[in-house]
Amino acid sequence: MSRIPVGVLGATGTVGQRFVQLLADHPWFEVVAVTGSDRTVGRPYGEGVNWLMPGNVPPQTAGLIVQPTRPDLNIPGDPPVVFSALPTAEAREWEPQFAAAGYAVVTNTSVFRMNPTVPLLIPEVNPDHTGLIPAQRQANNWPGFIVAGPNCSTTSAILPLKIFQEAFGVESAIITTLQAISGAGYPGVSSLDIYDNVVPYIGGEDDKLQNEPTKLLGAVRDGQMVPAAVSISAQANRVPVVDGHLASVSVRLGRRASAEEAIQALRDWQPPAISRQLPSSPREFLIYREEPDRPQPRRDRDAGNGLAWTVGKVRECPVLDVRYVSLTHNTLRGAASGSLLNAELLAVQGYIGNSKIG
Amino acid sequence: MSRIPVGVLGATGTVGQRFVQLLADHPWFEVVAVTGSDRTVGRPYGEGVNWLMPGNVPPQTAGLIVQPTRPDLNIPGDPPVVFSALPTAEAREWEPQFAAAGYAVVTNTSVFRMNPTVPLLIPEVNPDHTGLIPAQRQANNWPGFIVAGPNCSTTSAILPLKIFQEAFGVESAIITTLQAISGAGYPGVSSLDIYDNVVPYIGGEDDKLQNEPTKLLGAVRDGQMVPAAVSISAQANRVPVVDGHLASVSVRLGRRASAEEAIQALRDWQPPAISRQLPSSPREFLIYREEPDRPQPRRDRDAGNGLAWTVGKVRECPVLDVRYVSLTHNTLRGAASGSLLNAELLAVQGYIGNSKIG
Amino acid sequence: MSRIPVGVLGATGTVGQRFVQLLADHPWFEVVAVTGSDRTVGRPYGEGVNWLMPGNVPPQTAGLIVQPTRPDLNIPGDPPVVFSALPTAEAREWEPQFAAAGYAVVTNTSVFRMNPTVPLLIPEVNPDHTGLIPAQRQANNWPGFIVAGPNCSTTSAILPLKIFQEAFGVESAIITTLQAISGAGYPGVSSLDIYDNVVPYIGGEDDKLQNEPTKLLGAVRDGQMVPAAVSISAQANRVPVVDGHLASVSVRLGRRASAEEAIQALRDWQPPAISRQLPSSPREFLIYREEPDRPQPRRDRDAGNGLAWTVGKVRECPVLDVRYVSLTHNTLRGAASGSLLNAELLAVQGYIGNSKIG
Amino acid sequence: MSRIPVGVLGATGTVGQRFVQLLADHPWFEVVAVTGSDRTVGRPYGEGVNWLMPGNVPPQTAGLIVQPTRPDLNIPGDPPVVFSALPTAEAREWEPQFAAAGYAVVTNTSVFRMNPTVPLLIPEVNPDHTGLIPAQRQANNWPGFIVAGPNCSTTSAILPLKIFQEAFGVESAIITTLQAISGAGYPGVSSLDIYDNVVPYIGGEDDKLQNEPTKLLGAVRDGQMVPAAVSISAQANRVPVVDGHLASVSVRLGRRASAEEAIQALRDWQPPAISRQLPSSPREFLIYREEPDRPQPRRDRDAGNGLAWTVGKVRECPVLDVRYVSLTHNTLRGAASGSLLNAELLAVQGYIGNSKIG
Repeated sequence: MSRIPVGVLGATGTVGQRFVQLLADHPWFEVVAVTGSDRTVGRPYGEGVNWLMPGNVPPQTAGLIVQPTRPDLNIPGDPPVVFSALPTAEAREWEPQFAAAGYAVVTNTSVFRMNPTVPLLIPEVNPDHTGLIPAQRQANNWPGFIVAGPNCSTTSAILPLKIFQEAFGVESAIITTLQAISGAGYPGVSSLDIYDNVVPYIGGEDDKLQNEPTKLLGAVRDGQMVPAAVSISAQANRVPVVDGHLASVSVRLGRRASAEEAIQALRDWQPPAISRQLPSSPREFLIYREEPDRPQPRRDRDAGNGLAWTVGKVRECPVLDVRYVSLTHNTLRGAASGSLLNAELLAVQGYIGNSKIG
Repeated sequence: MSRIPVGVLGATGTVGQRFVQLLADHPWFEVVAVTGSDRTVGRPYGEGVNWLMPGNVPPQTAGLIVQPTRPDLNIPGDPPVVFSALPTAEAREWEPQFAAAGYAVVTNTSVFRMNPTVPLLIPEVNPDHTGLIPAQRQANNWPGFIVAGPNCSTTSAILPLKIFQEAFGVESAIITTLQAISGAGYPGVSSLDIYDNVVPYIGGEDDKLQNEPTKLLGAVRDGQMVPAAVSISAQANRVPVVDGHLASVSVRLGRRASAEEAIQALRDWQPPAISRQLPSSPREFLIYREEPDRPQPRRDRDAGNGLAWTVGKVRECPVLDVRYVSLTHNTLRGAASGSLLNAELLAVQGYIGNSKIG
Repeated sequence: MSRIPVGVLGATGTVGQRFVQLLADHPWFEVVAVTGSDRTVGRPYGEGVNWLMPGNVPPQTAGLIVQPTRPDLNIPGDPPVVFSALPTAEAREWEPQFAAAGYAVVTNTSVFRMNPTVPLLIPEVNPDHTGLIPAQRQANNWPGFIVAGPNCSTTSAILPLKIFQEAFGVESAIITTLQAISGAGYPGVSSLDIYDNVVPYIGGEDDKLQNEPTKLLGAVRDGQMVPAAVSISAQANRVPVVDGHLASVSVRLGRRASAEEAIQALRDWQPPAISRQLPSSPREFLIYREEPDRPQPRRDRDAGNGLAWTVGKVRECPVLDVRYVSLTHNTLRGAASGSLLNAELLAVQGYIGNSKIG
Repeated sequence: MSRIPVGVLGATGTVGQRFVQLLADHPWFEVVAVTGSDRTVGRPYGEGVNWLMPGNVPPQTAGLIVQPTRPDLNIPGDPPVVFSALPTAEAREWEPQFAAAGYAVVTNTSVFRMNPTVPLLIPEVNPDHTGLIPAQRQANNWPGFIVAGPNCSTTSAILPLKIFQEAFGVESAIITTLQAISGAGYPGVSSLDIYDNVVPYIGGEDDKLQNEPTKLLGAVRDGQMVPAAVSISAQANRVPVVDGHLASVSVRLGRRASAEEAIQALRDWQPPAISRQLPSSPREFLIYREEPDRPQPRRDRDAGNGLAWTVGKVRECPVLDVRYVSLTHNTLRGAASGSLLNAELLAVQGYIGNSKIG
C-alpha cells in the first residue's frame, strides 16, 4: 500500500531535522519535498543540512533538492500535506498561504495556536478539536487548513490536568517548569548562560503556559471553540538538562479529591480509542511512578519511545487541592513526534490521504 | 580588644569547614576548640580534615587537636559558645547535653528548629525571637541554650514573604525550589543522579519548607512562640548547579496588592536596625533585579558576599495574588554564614560574651 | 534451539545490571542464576536490585532468587558459564574458585587481566588469545577457566593501535583520556567533585592504560603469551560526561607513515572473520569521521549500538608519528557488551556450550 | 600620584569587559576612553554594554561615551596606551594603525603574536622580549608599538616548560588540553554542543599551541627574535567547565631528569625579579600540589587571584622523559589579567608612562 507523500517546511532546522528523522521509516507517510533557507535552496538536503540528529541523514531524503518555502511544491494528494517547522516569522507569512493554496498544514509553530478556528491538538487530550476545521476553512475561504500542536512545556503539564478535569473538574493551576536546553533549538542557549546555572525566564513561555491549556481543555461545540474556564499561573525555568521538560503543578479542583483519588484517576484513565489506531502512539501513554524521586528527565524522557507522560508525586496541596510532577520529552512528544501524531490523527479521521490507509 | 572564644562541633564536615573558614578572620570570634569524628579525634585539625573549602586550612585552626564531641571542651566564657555542624543523629544526642552543661549552642542543624522554645533565627527577619531563650532555659532547666538557623531552602524564599507579610499580610504560599548540589554535603549527590537531570525530591525538604516559615513569620509574645497562620505548599527539586538555591513562589496576600506595590514594598524595606550592627551583614540585604531573567544562581549567589537575597520577577499571579523568584547562596546565607550572623546577633543582644564587644 | 544457560556474579551492581539487561533477549544465552551481596541474597532479583538501567528489570530475571556468590549455582552446561561483575576483592577471591570448580568465567573485572595465562580479549583485536586457555588450566589444575575483558579506557584507545601495529608497527604511544562518570559505577563520583570540573586522576587507571595494551597487542605463541614491545605513557582524566570515553593518542610507528596512509589503514581494516559471526557485533566496527570536531561522546557513543569505535582527527604528530582521537561507550563496548562478545567468541570457538549453537 | 590614562579597544566584548573590571581600581592605570561596535558608539558605556562580569559596571567607566575604534581617542601620554580586546578582523585592521599613530598597543588578540618583531609576553617567562620593540618600530616606521599576550591554552602549559628548559633543556612536548567554555567568549559555545559532551576541536588552537611556545621559550639577541628549537604536538579539547584550562603535557628534555629533579626544579624556581614589582602579580606564582588528583579547574583556577599556575602530577613519562598537568584561569591569567601584567611590565621598563610610577 502506498504511503501518503508529505513535505517538510523548514526541514534544515532542528525541529525540521527531527521530522525528517521520524518520517524516515514511517508506515503511513513519505517525505517527497523539503524546504529550507536561502543558503540551502537548490542543494541536496544531505549536503545543505547541518545534521544534528543521531546517525546519518536518511538516504531517501538526503537526495531531495531543498526548495524555497513556497506553496508550489508539487506534492501529490488531496489535500497535499506539509509539516511545518518554520521559524516564527516565516510561519506567520507562509502557513496561511499554504492553507490558501489547498495544503493541509500540520504545524509545530506557535503563531496560530491561539487562533480560535485552528485546532490545537494532542490526540490523547482533544482529538475532536479537528471539528474546528470546517469553520476555519469557511472563515478564511481556504481549501486547505492548519492544525497546530501546543508548546512543549504546555505538553509536559497537560495530560494530568485533562484527566483531573474529567474526573473532578479543574478551576486553576500554578505551574513551575524546569525545561531542557534543547527546547531553544540550535545554537540556542549559550553554555555560559546555563552551565552551573538556572535561568528563570524563557521568552513568551509563561504566556503560552497560561493560555494554551484553556484551549486544550476546552470544548468544540457546534464547530466553535469554547475555551475552558481555567486560570493558570506559570513560571518557566531553563535548567541544564539536554532533553526533557518537567512541570511541577498545583491544582484547584472543581470538587475536592484526595491524593489517592487523584492517583486512581490517573491509573484508570484510558486514552480516546482513536489514539490506539495511531502507529506512533506508545504502548503505555501515561506511566505513574510511585517512587518519591520520579519523574526525572534523564531517566524518564525516553519512556514510550519519547511519547509517554511520566507522572509522579501526586499528593495533597496545602494551598490548592492536589500537586503533581509531570514530564515529557520536549523534542519528541513536545514537538516533532507530537505533530506526527496529529497528522496520523488527521489521516484516521479522513482529513488527509484517506484513501491511502488501510 | 579580645575576641570571644568559640568551639565548632562537627568541624571536619563541609558545614563545619565553612564555619572554620568564615571564623578565620572574624572580628568578634576566635576558634579555640574543634570536635570531629572518631577517625579524626586526637589529630591536628589540619591533618585530620579533608579540606574542601577554597585555599588552605586557616593556620590558627590547623594546629588545634580534634576533640570528641563532649561538653568538656574548656572553652572560656559565660556562657561558652559553640557552633554546631553535627550530623543529625549526633545533634539530637549532644546539642541538649551542651545546653544542659551551660553552653550557648548556635546550630545549623534541623533537629530542634521546630521546638517551640528554640529560636529559629534570621536576624533580618525575626531578631526578637531570641526572646524565647528564657522559656527554653526554664522548660529544660538548662543553664545554656540552643538557637537554630532555618533550612537553606527556607532561607531562600523567606525574606520577600516577611516583607509582604508586614506590608499586606500573607495567607498562603506555593513554593517550588531549584536547589544546588552543595546543599547535600559531601560526597552527597552522586554525579550519575544529577548530571543531565533533575531530581524532584530532597528527603524531608518539603516538610521543612512548609513548616519553618510559620515559625519565622510568627511572633514571640510573653516569651512564647505564636506561629503565623500561613499555609505553605512546597516542592523541592535538586538541579545540577553547584551553589545557590532558587525559589519560585506564588503568594496569597492578606489584602490584594499590585505587582508595583509588591515591588515597592521590597524596595522600601529596611532591615531591623540591629542587622546593621552585625559585622558579617552585607551592605545591601535585598537586591531587586529588574531584568526578566534574574535572579540566576551562578550570577547572583555571591552578591553581598553570599549573604544578600536577590529577588526578581515580581508580578501578579493569576491564581493567587503575586509571584516572585528569590535566590540565596545555600552554604553561606543558607548555612554557616547565617549561623554566624545569629551568633553576632546574640552577642549584640548580650546573650553571649557581652563584655567583649565594644 | 535451546540457549546456553548462564549465571551473573555480582548481578545487583551497575555492571551486573547491564549484563542482565543485555542478556534479556540474547539469541544464544539465557540467565538462569544471579548472585549478589548479603543484603539481597534470598530475595527475588527484581526486589533486591536498585535498578539503574533504562526501563524495567527483565521479567524473566526479576523472579530469580539472588544467591550467594559460591560455585554451587547448579547451572547446566559443560562447562557451566558465568559472567562476573564482582567487586575487585570478591573477584580475587571467587573467580579462581569458580574456575577450580569447572566454570567458564567471563569476567569484566581487573584482577586477572595481566595474569599471563588469562586471555585478555577483544574479539576484533585478538580472538586467538583464547589459545592461552589450555596453559591456564594446566598451570592451575583447573577444569574451568577465566577470560577477561580489558579496562574501559584501554578499550577506547586500542583498536586504531592494533590496526597501526598491523600496518606499520607500533613502538610507543602517549595516551590522554577524557573519561565519563559512569565508569566509576554507582554512586561513584560525587557531583561536587566533577561538576564544572575535571579530575586528572582515576585510581589505577594510568597503570592499566600502560600495561593492558602490551598484552592485547601481543601474540600467543605455542600457547604462551608474548607481550608486545610497546611503551605507553598514560594520563587518565575524569570529565563531566555521563557515558563515553575519549582517548587522545600520539603514536611512534615502526615505520613512518603519513596521515593519509594511517587513515587508509583504518578504512581498509577488516575485523577478524569470526567477529562477523558474533550476534552482538555491530554492523560497522570502526567509523572514521572526517569532521575536525569528531568523535564526541554524546554524539558518537551510541554508534553501532554502543559497540563501534568512532575515530577521527588522524594527523601527523610533530613529536612522534601520528595522532588520533578515539571513542567508545565505556559501559557497553568497554564493559558488559565487551564481555558478552567475549562469551560469544568462546561459543563460536567451542570453549563453551558448543553443541547449542547452530 | 596620578595614574596612567588608558583606553580599551573593543570594551563591550567579554575580554573588553574584563579589562574594564580589572582596571576599575588599578593603582597605576585609569580608563579614560572605551571603543565599541557601531551598535554602542555614542552611548554611555554603562548603557551600551551587556555586562557579563560579576557585580556592576564600574561607575567611573559607566559614564564614558563609547567611541569608534579609531586612533583619535585623545588619550594623554607619550605614548598613549590602549588595551586591545578587538575581534580578530578589527585587530588586524586597527592595531597597526594605532601603532602608526603613536599608541602603545597592549593586545590580547592573536593577529600579531607570531610576528617576529612583536613581543609575545608573559612577564614571568620572558620579560626581556620587550627588547624587540625598537626593531618593530624601525621595521614599520611606527612611533608606537604592539605587544601581545599568548593564547590562553598556551599560557596554561608554558611555565613548567620554561622552568624545565632552564633546568634541563626541552626538545619537544606533546600537549593535550582540556579547555573551559569561557575561552570561546559570549555567546560562544552552544550548550547543545558541550553539555554531557567533549569537543576535540577548537579552531586554530592546535596551531597556536604548537607555535607560540617556540617564541615564548626563544631568546631576543641583538634585538632580534631567535625562536627555541622545540617541537610541539597539540590536541585541544573543549570540556564542560566554566573557567580554567588544564594541560596534560609530556616532555622530552635536553638531558634526562627524574621526576624528583623535575619537581625540585619547579619548587626552586623564582620568577624574574621584575615580576615582583608588578602590582597585579600574585604572591605565589607557581603552586605545586602533591595530591594525585590536582590541579582541578574549579578548585585551583582562582589561586593567586586567578594569576597563579597550579601544577601537579609530575612523573616520569615512559615514552618521553617527564609528564605534568598544569592549570591556569583562562580569562584571567590567560587573557585580560595577563595583558594587564604586560602593561605593568612596560611601565616598569619605561616603555609607557615612565614618569608616572614611583
